[in-house]
Amino acid sequence: MARRAPRRLTVRPGAGAAAPYDLIVRPGALEALAGIAADVAASGVAVIADARVAELHGDRLRRALPDGGRVEFYLVPPGEASKTPETVVDLTRRLVRAGFDRRALVVAFGGGVVGDLAGFVAASFLRGVPFVNAPTSHLAMVDASIGGKTGVNLPEGKNLMGAFWQPHAVLADVDTLRTLPRRIFRQGAVETIKHGLLADASLLDLLDEPGFAPEGPADVLAEAVLRSAAVKARIVEADTLERGVRAHLNLGHTLAHALEKASDHGLAHGDAVAYGLLFAAHLSEARGARGVVDPARRLLTWLEPNPLPPADLDELDPYLARDKKAEHGRRRWVLLEAPQRPQLVDDVAAAELRDAWTALHRDVAALAKETR
Amino acid sequence: MARRAPRRLTVRPGAGAAAPYDLIVRPGALEALAGIAADVAASGVAVIADARVAELHGDRLRRALPDGGRVEFYLVPPGEASKTPETVVDLTRRLVRAGFDRRALVVAFGGGVVGDLAGFVAASFLRGVPFVNAPTSHLAMVDASIGGKTGVNLPEGKNLMGAFWQPHAVLADVDTLRTLPRRIFRQGAVETIKHGLLADASLLDLLDEPGFAPEGPADVLAEAVLRSAAVKARIVEADTLERGVRAHLNLGHTLAHALEKASDHGLAHGDAVAYGLLFAAHLSEARGARGVVDPARRLLTWLEPNPLPPADLDELDPYLARDKKAEHGRRRWVLLEAPQRPQLVDDVAAAELRDAWTALHRDVAALAKETR
Repeated sequence: MARRAPRRLTVRPGAGAAAPYDLIVRPGALEALAGIAADVAASGVAVIADARVAELHGDRLRRALPDGGRVEFYLVPPGEASKTPETVVDLTRRLVRAGFDRRALVVAFGGGVVGDLAGFVAASFLRGVPFVNAPTSHLAMVDASIGGKTGVNLPEGKNLMGAFWQPHAVLADVDTLRTLPRRIFRQGAVETIKHGLLADASLLDLLDEPGFAPEGPADVLAEAVLRSAAVKARIVEADTLERGVRAHLNLGHTLAHALEKASDHGLAHGDAVAYGLLFAAHLSEARGARGVVDPARRLLTWLEPNPLPPADLDELDPYLARDKKAEHGRRRWVLLEAPQRPQLVDDVAAAELRDAWTALHRDVAALAKETR
Repeated sequence: MARRAPRRLTVRPGAGAAAPYDLIVRPGALEALAGIAADVAASGVAVIADARVAELHGDRLRRALPDGGRVEFYLVPPGEASKTPETVVDLTRRLVRAGFDRRALVVAFGGGVVGDLAGFVAASFLRGVPFVNAPTSHLAMVDASIGGKTGVNLPEGKNLMGAFWQPHAVLADVDTLRTLPRRIFRQGAVETIKHGLLADASLLDLLDEPGFAPEGPADVLAEAVLRSAAVKARIVEADTLERGVRAHLNLGHTLAHALEKASDHGLAHGDAVAYGLLFAAHLSEARGARGVVDPARRLLTWLEPNPLPPADLDELDPYLARDKKAEHGRRRWVLLEAPQRPQLVDDVAAAELRDAWTALHRDVAALAKETR
């Protein structure tokens, strides 16, 4: 994969008033923050940060903030439990009491949870103020930070309240990846391999690239993040409000969501998606696709996921049916006609699912034997 | 004022992904609902209604709803106390539990409170679903329902959380005005007179039109609502996200908000705005405008507002300064260079305010003498 591609990507939301925005990927990307605050004539900066990320990298962010003017940090506990409407209301009230007005700049500093949460605060505070997303996790850099989806969970389910609110910029400082444990880093990389299957074959080569690791060279990391994010960006540009091709991003996720639910979220999202990608690859090859199972198998070898939950396919069935992408009562699958050629399919028969499920378990067993 | 103008107005939001939408003003306007539900391919209709309005006019709405498909009513108690984030979360959770998906159509049925609340539910449920506003109060028909502002109050202040979310249609069924007490009807008309001062002289003639009353002819009511709403629509089209001329709509509101706060919201909004309009008219005439005090005085005579709170101008000062429209630290006033020629002014001196305050009280005293 070429090493000297540009480190800046411009995203042009296809719908909405939002202007195009830049994704800046490099060590020190946070340094762009002061310039952005000046650009939007911010009267103050409200940083909503994952408490643990703030501890590890807060100084780096502080140095990047504009001198003078109001700057406040709001720390939220790490983890999905912070992504609630109650947290949004609490943060909004604190912004009001701190004197922020509609020229506030809200900055998210953390992983996907903080990005979704802070983005929804920015979207709804005084009916919307400028927002910068500074993702610090691998997954957030290549996936959650691109596309303008913000939101919070309800007891009834995830992401049921929110807004499409495009950021003014996304600052992916790859130096923040260096503190990630290898396992978390690779979990985030699962979406990059998905993007490789969907649209960019060069991303699949990362599975053989020793430098693609938290301790790897900065330019390998930056290039991988940028190319992966670019796949997501091109798809959401074509379908900002998720009415069509954006569904392709769901590749591997239909089974993954069912596995996560069946394991009561004991199975990590990256692991679940990796299994889901291999499952979708088998479904695809049974319909004539070639060359899609191999990269999905290599991903599993590279990732070393935790075991599949003991559930049988029949037990997963209700979770599959309830997937939100299954509109109009039909169950919809994202498959691949070939590598980099996704297609939406709504006529997958029970027997096909059964065969793919068997093939998935055969692969998993073979992999276990290899690595024993 | 001409009686046969069209009863449908197309509003074209100037920013955002929102499509142009129709404001339909006539007796029976609610009948358009089934067609709209078909238009947006709604999988169900969730009506969020003021409980009192539902009691008075619910049958009319029920008859207009599409046959078959899910229809649910959610009643909220009348009054500003319902406009909270907690109500939004509660309603959203109930929509989820009732099985509504992203093809839900949310309908607001009530005054400004319900429109703001239901609009924000529609904006944030699953990151946004189609919305129809069916305002039933005079004020909501000519003002709150136009322009896409939705939101809720926080303990720290009004409308601090929300979204710009344009409706798919606004259905102003003027038959719902017929149950309004005359005093409430006239309160709503204050914004219509404001619109007359801002942009449409023919609206000022309504002060001499005996048919402009809850029991008046339907075509007088529909025509008045349509022309008044058109003024608001033209302004918000030019400035959907409130960055510029939309501030003109604040005519009379700077003093009005201060009077409301000084009276601890004992003074009704319409009364407060009527006083505010006369105050702004005096400020304007002292700067050379002609013909603006007279209609504002006639409004006061027609409205018979409750008395001014006993506060002195000095006591109002902190409330004036804290008005949200006063950005950049300067206090900004909307004045009139002449009838239908609004201007934004930020150099009003303390002495001018004092003189206008005296003139306002002189007028109020004279009016009291007349009507005694």
